[in-house]
Amino acid sequence: MAPIRVHGTPFSTAVGRVLATLYEKELEFELVAVDMKAGEHKKEPFLSINPFGQVPGFEDGDLKLFESRAITKYLAQEYADKGTQFKCGDSKTAAIIGVWMEVEAHQFDPAAAKLTWELAIKPRYGLNTDTAIVEEHEAKLAKVLDVYEIRLAQSKYLGCDCFTLADLHHLPNIQYLLGTQAKKLFDSRPHVSAWVDAITARPAWSKVLALQKQ
Amino acid sequence: MAPIRVHGTPFSTAVGRVLATLYEKELEFELVAVDMKAGEHKKEPFLSINPFGQVPGFEDGDLKLFESRAITKYLAQEYADKGTQFKCGDSKTAAIIGVWMEVEAHQFDPAAAKLTWELAIKPRYGLNTDTAIVEEHEAKLAKVLDVYEIRLAQSKYLGCDCFTLADLHHLPNIQYLLGTQAKKLFDSRPHVSAWVDAITARPAWSKVLALQKQ
Repeated sequence: MAPIRVHGTPFSTAVGRVLATLYEKELEFELVAVDMKAGEHKKEPFLSINPFGQVPGFEDGDLKLFESRAITKYLAQEYADKGTQFKCGDSKTAAIIGVWMEVEAHQFDPAAAKLTWELAIKPRYGLNTDTAIVEEHEAKLAKVLDVYEIRLAQSKYLGCDCFTLADLHHLPNIQYLLGTQAKKLFDSRPHVSAWVDAITARPAWSKVLALQKQ
Repeated sequence: MAPIRVHGTPFSTAVGRVLATLYEKELEFELVAVDMKAGEHKKEPFLSINPFGQVPGFEDGDLKLFESRAITKYLAQEYADKGTQFKCGDSKTAAIIGVWMEVEAHQFDPAAAKLTWELAIKPRYGLNTDTAIVEEHEAKLAKVLDVYEIRLAQSKYLGCDCFTLADLHHLPNIQYLLGTQAKKLFDSRPHVSAWVDAITARPAWSKVLALQKQ
């Protein structure tokens, strides 16, 4: 049995963040399916890993973790000597990478996750998209991406000139949104568009997409 | 001039997180007022510190940061040898502290910040509280605090048996909510209540409250 186990589905944006990090770090792991339709994530034993009942759950030996961004940071730290380094520069650069990780979580994700739900997920389940919510959150995401456009004109990636978790954390929502009308928000900003091309082209991310097709 | 400058008002929950960390770390700093009524945070020179136009802005020498939780993590790391250590145990404990920092950001804050706005801030500005929003978010916060109650029965603080940023980040919203009807959500859970007493009693936090009274 692999020591690292990820509980969840590769279609979840939160699980996707963890899987992308595991592939970047070239770590072996086992993906354990959670039958969310049957509510397995709201019952034991899943709740003993994540008491909030949300995927992913994560185990590395006897260590149990949840919250995707906490798991990715753990992997980057604990397996610092493996695979992608996710850093460049000194402690000040690390602080700036930290800023852009928080930007993803508090500026990008609230708008992007709503759009992913309305434009990408709901249609798959035959649910009606709420166009007012889409309009509101496209406007919010556009403002966020205006700031990204300026940042990415100065820096190849968000945190520094290297690919870091600050970029990686965006991948699952961006991937969904590229298949929707919200694609225009990325395409219309040249530096954002080049950054999207660079991060979605990473071999580790292709492996996550391949998992979704299995 | 102090090398560390915090731009914003001590009444902001995000600024409060940074101030509490600076006092815990026993660091000297200058608090620079931002006239938010005049929209100073949406103009230069503030936007050159935080392009999203939100307080706090932060400077440590020539390093400019924003996003409160990125600033607190920077301070904990950069000034590791000063004041409160904010950690205990090995890298696995650090990972668990990381989980509870993400829980604050993604489970607690969305509900608590809405309640702070509706119950504590709006009345100060003569705005009407939306009781439907209050009801919805009190229910959400209650569910989060049910998980906290179980966690805090096993662990003195959220991340481990020491006070860490995972606890500190909660302080500003909790302080506001203790002055509202939402206080009952904390009081009715014995372990949560003892934790609230412990973290709000910290001398560093008293200094933030004193700043609000100046």
